[in-house]
Amino acid sequence: MIKVSVIGSGNVAQHLIKVFLQAPKIELVQAFARQPQASLHLLPKEKITNDYNTLQDADVYIISVSDNAINEVSNQLPFTNKLVVHTSGTTGLDAITDKNRKGVFYPLQTFSKNKVVDFSTIPICLEAENKEDYSLLESLANAISNNVYSISSEQRKSLHVAAVFVSNFVNHLYSIGSEICKENDVPFEILKPLIQEVANKIETLSPKEAQTGPALRNDTKTIEKHLKFLKDSNYYDIYQLLTQSIQNVAKKL
Amino acid sequence: MIKVSVIGSGNVAQHLIKVFLQAPKIELVQAFARQPQASLHLLPKEKITNDYNTLQDADVYIISVSDNAINEVSNQLPFTNKLVVHTSGTTGLDAITDKNRKGVFYPLQTFSKNKVVDFSTIPICLEAENKEDYSLLESLANAISNNVYSISSEQRKSLHVAAVFVSNFVNHLYSIGSEICKENDVPFEILKPLIQEVANKIETLSPKEAQTGPALRNDTKTIEKHLKFLKDSNYYDIYQLLTQSIQNVAKKL
Repeated sequence: MIKVSVIGSGNVAQHLIKVFLQAPKIELVQAFARQPQASLHLLPKEKITNDYNTLQDADVYIISVSDNAINEVSNQLPFTNKLVVHTSGTTGLDAITDKNRKGVFYPLQTFSKNKVVDFSTIPICLEAENKEDYSLLESLANAISNNVYSISSEQRKSLHVAAVFVSNFVNHLYSIGSEICKENDVPFEILKPLIQEVANKIETLSPKEAQTGPALRNDTKTIEKHLKFLKDSNYYDIYQLLTQSIQNVAKKL
Repeated sequence: MIKVSVIGSGNVAQHLIKVFLQAPKIELVQAFARQPQASLHLLPKEKITNDYNTLQDADVYIISVSDNAINEVSNQLPFTNKLVVHTSGTTGLDAITDKNRKGVFYPLQTFSKNKVVDFSTIPICLEAENKEDYSLLESLANAISNNVYSISSEQRKSLHVAAVFVSNFVNHLYSIGSEICKENDVPFEILKPLIQEVANKIETLSPKEAQTGPALRNDTKTIEKHLKFLKDSNYYDIYQLLTQSIQNVAKKL
């Protein structure tokens, strides 16, 4: 059994608590929440604390709080030389204070409060300062996911930037598509099979191979029509910049 | 039985030929291909012609060629007062010459040559000049798809612009994500479950509700880190513009 303590009560922390409770090889010793009621729907009262001094012994302490708070929280831990990890995609190992052994346990997924997530498919990116700690994190990650990767802080930084492009920005393009539909009395439903197909395509083709559309074909007539259609200057700028970018990539091929 | 003739041998034409051949209520009378060998893997030789004067009688003639060629092809048809439709998302009814009855049969999907497509889920957007023609197109579309919509030329124009945002541009963001991974020795595989989840999310949430990330949170520290990380000026500009755009939408809410 790997004894785990989760510090935090946000989205990621709550998803981790849920999946740890279900994993046979993991014992969730305790959860720390500044406002214990935030986690009461997940855990019995006696397993939740809001006092760092009552933290019980665990093999690994997972700090799952907002990026800016990681350092402060790790500072407040009353023990030394234990394995303490954070779950952030953008924060280095050094956010954790030197008095403990450091690591990262970063599940790369978008977590919404009201959406159930199948953890077994979520990639978990691990980092530790030594082999033993890495092994322990690996066992912990393997107990809840089939996709476990060793990722350095430098790699993680790049991965987080890439993730912003393929998730936050992609979702924003969905928003723009949905707005254009709304403004023109067209059900956004019509676009959903297309959206799914575009996401599915890259399971078998590289994104470069999968690229289609007027920009790639250099279909200037259609591009001009589209730009003329876009009254919103923001949409216009995005259309123009992404069209240019697709054409720049095509030129390099 | 609805008698159909397909004019063209590109991606969309070939997918249509395949699905019409399988549909019990449809008789594919003939396919026109300038280079008949392009369609020989789909149809017996005697069903393919490259001579407009040998086009046989059909209930509907589907012109599935590049947008710029629709007008010329419709001009060359040797008959009058038949139902002639095109499959383009960006072209008006008027691209078809007046000597025939006009319509649109626009399957809204991204078609790649080497990827099998389940036609039953593809939305088909229809337009015709009168009720009888519309009914015929509707029966034809219902024979191959469960998602049939009546969409005017104006609506279709907006839909095509929206489709560029949610498919071509989205795929380009996948490309950028993949490039960033490659440059930093991170397997792009790690991002694929995230990509799927983002696409799946909008089946249950609106894109606006589904939005997450540093731009929405106005997490300026992370945004600055990311911009500093992006050496490529093109990626930098896209990151900045999309971040601003997400924040503009958030302000309006």
